[in-house]
Amino acid sequence: MSVVTDTMRNGVDTEKMFATLDLIKARPELARFQFRAANRWIEGAHNRSTIRGFYAAGGEDTTRSEEFRLDAGEPGILLGSDTGPNPAEYLLHALAACLTTSIVYVAAARKVELSSVESTLTGEMDVRGALGVDEEPRNGFERIGVSFRVTGNAPAEKLREVVERARKRSAVYDMVTNGVPVAVEVSSD
Amino acid sequence: MSVVTDTMRNGVDTEKMFATLDLIKARPELARFQFRAANRWIEGAHNRSTIRGFYAAGGEDTTRSEEFRLDAGEPGILLGSDTGPNPAEYLLHALAACLTTSIVYVAAARKVELSSVESTLTGEMDVRGALGVDEEPRNGFERIGVSFRVTGNAPAEKLREVVERARKRSAVYDMVTNGVPVAVEVSSD
Repeated sequence: MSVVTDTMRNGVDTEKMFATLDLIKARPELARFQFRAANRWIEGAHNRSTIRGFYAAGGEDTTRSEEFRLDAGEPGILLGSDTGPNPAEYLLHALAACLTTSIVYVAAARKVELSSVESTLTGEMDVRGALGVDEEPRNGFERIGVSFRVTGNAPAEKLREVVERARKRSAVYDMVTNGVPVAVEVSSD
Repeated sequence: MSVVTDTMRNGVDTEKMFATLDLIKARPELARFQFRAANRWIEGAHNRSTIRGFYAAGGEDTTRSEEFRLDAGEPGILLGSDTGPNPAEYLLHALAACLTTSIVYVAAARKVELSSVESTLTGEMDVRGALGVDEEPRNGFERIGVSFRVTGNAPAEKLREVVERARKRSAVYDMVTNGVPVAVEVSSD
């Protein structure tokens, strides 16, 4: 999609965006989505997810022409051979990507043309938790820091408002800060 | 790493694993880790994270020879052009990868040789939240389902115990179920 018309802003088709919002307001049952991943262990800390199908707007998606493959790993100090980012790094990426897309969409809706959106994320962990050495530290990050640099054709205050609105609407920010119920089933047939 | 010795189990060097645990028990200050991601917006829903450096065991890592690049996107129905998995799908992958590696490591420690670890994950979302159409639905997944199939040289009951222990020790499972404080800074210089 490199068509540039009056409706394109920040690479987002704002006409389509507002039409989508109107449609979902009128027919809220179309807002039910399901996303999926399938993962398979390869060796040691190396495993791979394949991602393609999802349910959206009343039916199964048929538009994705290929599956995405994501390889995970661990560095040597965590007993892997660096076959990919580790799972905690993937979580930082998920958070960065969601906040960034939210910023871009909010800016498009508010007629702000962005020049750049860059972020660095850090997560602090005491690995005694995940390694089972000590009961006291939690397994995951104790805290995550996100530092954005956002530029565009709006005053700094407006750009900050865009980021703040994006934070309030980001799916992954919601999940990472508030948590999600996870049900785990196991079979060994 | 394809060296096979008595200490390798499930692709994990168990001698190194137990030595690491002993070292961290003796010197808990070595358990401080920091992971990072840097993200840059490209266009629309397309953004990319680069992941390389991390702090571990008292110093900055020097072993990673290359950076990992992760491209995120959205399908057309969410106003993107499918330049990669979307952020919520990346979160499912992070969770799958972390639980799987935890299963593999716990099994290695407990002398269980695994044949296969496969999982499918689903996340249910009402996109009215993230799209800002309705205040009531949350932005992120309402719930996540994880279905594992695990096989190996141990009875089903033992394999279930391995999965249960892995769930209790997984860094990403902890973060996704319990949440993490996230601090967001913005500059527009």
